[in-house]
Amino acid sequence: MPIHYYLNILHRYRTYSVIASVIKNANVGELTEIKGWVKNLRVYKEVVFADISDGSCAKKLQIVIPKHLKADNLTYGSSVHIIGKLSKSPRGQLELTAEDVNVLGQCVVLDGYPFNPRTTHPPEYIRQYLHLRSRTNYISAVLRIRHAVTKHIHDFFTSNSYLYIHTPVLTSNDCEGAGEVFKVIPDNKATIKAMRQQDKCDDDVYFGTKTFLTVSGQLHLEAMCRGLGNVYTLGPTFRAENSRSRLHLSEFYMLEAELAFCDCLEELQKFIEDLLKYVFIETRNSNEDDLYLLDKEKKPPLWLDKNFVTLSYDEARNILKKKGLNTSEDGINKEQELALVDHCNGVPVFIVRWPKEQKSFYMKESQVDNTKVEALDLLAPITGEIVGGSLREDDYNKLKSKLPSEALNWYLELRKFGNIPTAGFGLGLERLLQVLCNVPNIKDTLPFPRWPHNCDM
Amino acid sequence: MPIHYYLNILHRYRTYSVIASVIKNANVGELTEIKGWVKNLRVYKEVVFADISDGSCAKKLQIVIPKHLKADNLTYGSSVHIIGKLSKSPRGQLELTAEDVNVLGQCVVLDGYPFNPRTTHPPEYIRQYLHLRSRTNYISAVLRIRHAVTKHIHDFFTSNSYLYIHTPVLTSNDCEGAGEVFKVIPDNKATIKAMRQQDKCDDDVYFGTKTFLTVSGQLHLEAMCRGLGNVYTLGPTFRAENSRSRLHLSEFYMLEAELAFCDCLEELQKFIEDLLKYVFIETRNSNEDDLYLLDKEKKPPLWLDKNFVTLSYDEARNILKKKGLNTSEDGINKEQELALVDHCNGVPVFIVRWPKEQKSFYMKESQVDNTKVEALDLLAPITGEIVGGSLREDDYNKLKSKLPSEALNWYLELRKFGNIPTAGFGLGLERLLQVLCNVPNIKDTLPFPRWPHNCDM
Repeated sequence: MPIHYYLNILHRYRTYSVIASVIKNANVGELTEIKGWVKNLRVYKEVVFADISDGSCAKKLQIVIPKHLKADNLTYGSSVHIIGKLSKSPRGQLELTAEDVNVLGQCVVLDGYPFNPRTTHPPEYIRQYLHLRSRTNYISAVLRIRHAVTKHIHDFFTSNSYLYIHTPVLTSNDCEGAGEVFKVIPDNKATIKAMRQQDKCDDDVYFGTKTFLTVSGQLHLEAMCRGLGNVYTLGPTFRAENSRSRLHLSEFYMLEAELAFCDCLEELQKFIEDLLKYVFIETRNSNEDDLYLLDKEKKPPLWLDKNFVTLSYDEARNILKKKGLNTSEDGINKEQELALVDHCNGVPVFIVRWPKEQKSFYMKESQVDNTKVEALDLLAPITGEIVGGSLREDDYNKLKSKLPSEALNWYLELRKFGNIPTAGFGLGLERLLQVLCNVPNIKDTLPFPRWPHNCDM
Repeated sequence: MPIHYYLNILHRYRTYSVIASVIKNANVGELTEIKGWVKNLRVYKEVVFADISDGSCAKKLQIVIPKHLKADNLTYGSSVHIIGKLSKSPRGQLELTAEDVNVLGQCVVLDGYPFNPRTTHPPEYIRQYLHLRSRTNYISAVLRIRHAVTKHIHDFFTSNSYLYIHTPVLTSNDCEGAGEVFKVIPDNKATIKAMRQQDKCDDDVYFGTKTFLTVSGQLHLEAMCRGLGNVYTLGPTFRAENSRSRLHLSEFYMLEAELAFCDCLEELQKFIEDLLKYVFIETRNSNEDDLYLLDKEKKPPLWLDKNFVTLSYDEARNILKKKGLNTSEDGINKEQELALVDHCNGVPVFIVRWPKEQKSFYMKESQVDNTKVEALDLLAPITGEIVGGSLREDDYNKLKSKLPSEALNWYLELRKFGNIPTAGFGLGLERLLQVLCNVPNIKDTLPFPRWPHNCDM
């Protein structure tokens, strides 16, 4: 049954229209009913002009309210129900001439409403009011874009026959071995008491094992990939780092994919490049007004019609050295990442084939140079690293010798029965949004940011 | 840029085809390259027949392997790369006559592979091998359906102008006040030490407040709804209950939606009914083979063309009383839920207008009877309760008097500025899959189930 059948059903009981459709259809002369919030008021002698938003799009609908309707408690921020007729203003703008105005909920700014009309509040200020900030133009535009980006990502993967897997949040693995994880225990002491076992510490009795919040769904995806083929996940991921930078969160969304039968880094790179270009192009089509609201210059990123650059880790180091920036044993730092993007004229750049000791145990040893692994980082403007990926070690014995813990024997066993080569990557959704929307601080790319000392609501 | 542009790009570097497309396109005579796993082998004198699956669909592709190709290490469970020509068998079945067979990874069942060919292992047995069970017909079919159901849900909401909001997993609220929550603390003692504060308990220093895993995104959705209009979320949710029933998980996915400007329970009911029917019909179209694999009888649920039933809580109690089942003060138990569905001939039934003391503080008091709230439960076959929802209390003073904690003052404040009526519901994705796929145990509806004493991998 086609979806518009259902839309028709819905229209039978939802009498009002969302403003996005009213503006899109522009049915001049039609009796129209809308509900939303007052974003702006201009009071004249005979008439009041009100700009109304219902959150469905960046644009506001202008309402012409004749004085006799006496909408006295109509103030900035109040919610309204308006019935009227659509027309075009002398300047060609779509407007609704009200025949009935009903204030649903008043808004008295003096009672403590933190936002003011015709004021652009700085993001740090708005961030103090997480529960109200979806009412601001800036945050609502970012969240509509976040919705669209998520949808385009799912479309890209579904069209390429990838299966969406809900990898678990709770895990007994500590995949990266970094130690910066959150542990999870029941809050209720009675539950713990009822489940207590002699040989277990109280923290571990619920699951019978120490349990963490996931830092990556990759190992789980690899298990799924060996039965279902191409798979991906997009879900919450956690780091218990004490970092308050503009690029870090304690809870963030990560897109991870595992490419079945992929045994070459170039194929992985091509896939990542196609994905990013697809999402950028589709979002510029679907959310033009929102992107304009965030960035009036609305320049498409200059790399959209260029090929991404590829540099080996050694080449990247030499470039940095010539610029007087020496890399340490730990790899390439944020300043150096951004210098490399700059060196490539702002075009994203893959850094490939990394020293083994800088990367994770599961990465495939290079056939050409056994001090290197077949890994990549993708560096982008604004954020630096945005994607990390690799071919996975598919040699049972090599993997066994590098396995950090016996608890991962299940992961080793994936190589024992009907094994296949695979490659995969992880991409931070919030960093992608920073690049796409030109948002300096990652905390403004999601509805409820969590970072050290901040877990409001 | 249309998505097939990208598909064309991808086809340029991925030379092989997924079996779902090979079967769908059925290009007899075409040279075809596939990769997958051996699900079945029939060895004859001159020829070997192998059934290959790559996880992309329920159907297997039959391969005809002439003896001279000598694929000796081709065993059940091994992974293969096959090139050949498509043809139709005398009985009209699509098959691939192999010209080249390459075993990528062997599978020696005697080395400890837990599955055997032509054997239907019971779910409890398969569940012991979470890392390998995506290779079984049953679990791979359920996971393909889970992908499709998720997609259909997103399509339904997007088409109805609902915005997808990623509500947080980490929260300082304990929304339901039930106490059955997990608390979250950094695992690294050095991090805690570095952040230690005199007035805080060590468990709370990281976020500066006691932090839990979410039990519901509803309150967060309500905040978003008052700026963005219609919103929904679909994400992981947690309960630290000591329950090992076939209907409970410690981590599960919950679909929650908040309907802006909705002030009537009938509108909410209609929306839920339309959503469920849409998802069921679309999934029967998109995943016919998977559903057939799970349930050979493939009967559409008998309620798909019927209207859902509505009973008031008091009516439901009377029906149960007549059946000799007395309800307690706590409401309606699982046995009684299923008896009510049975009473309605297996058609899902809304139980509406519940006693205030059985339901949460945020539910709207009934205008007709102030001992009741405008709440609903939807009961379905197999699982009983599948949806819970309500109108939200939008009266500032009534809500204030019922607010369980000062920590929720932000929630109260939503009613102070430009308030609107809203209604919403929560639906357990895994229970929906149980009803849709006729899966008795909830642990078989998701890739990595977590329940007491079980958090493997």
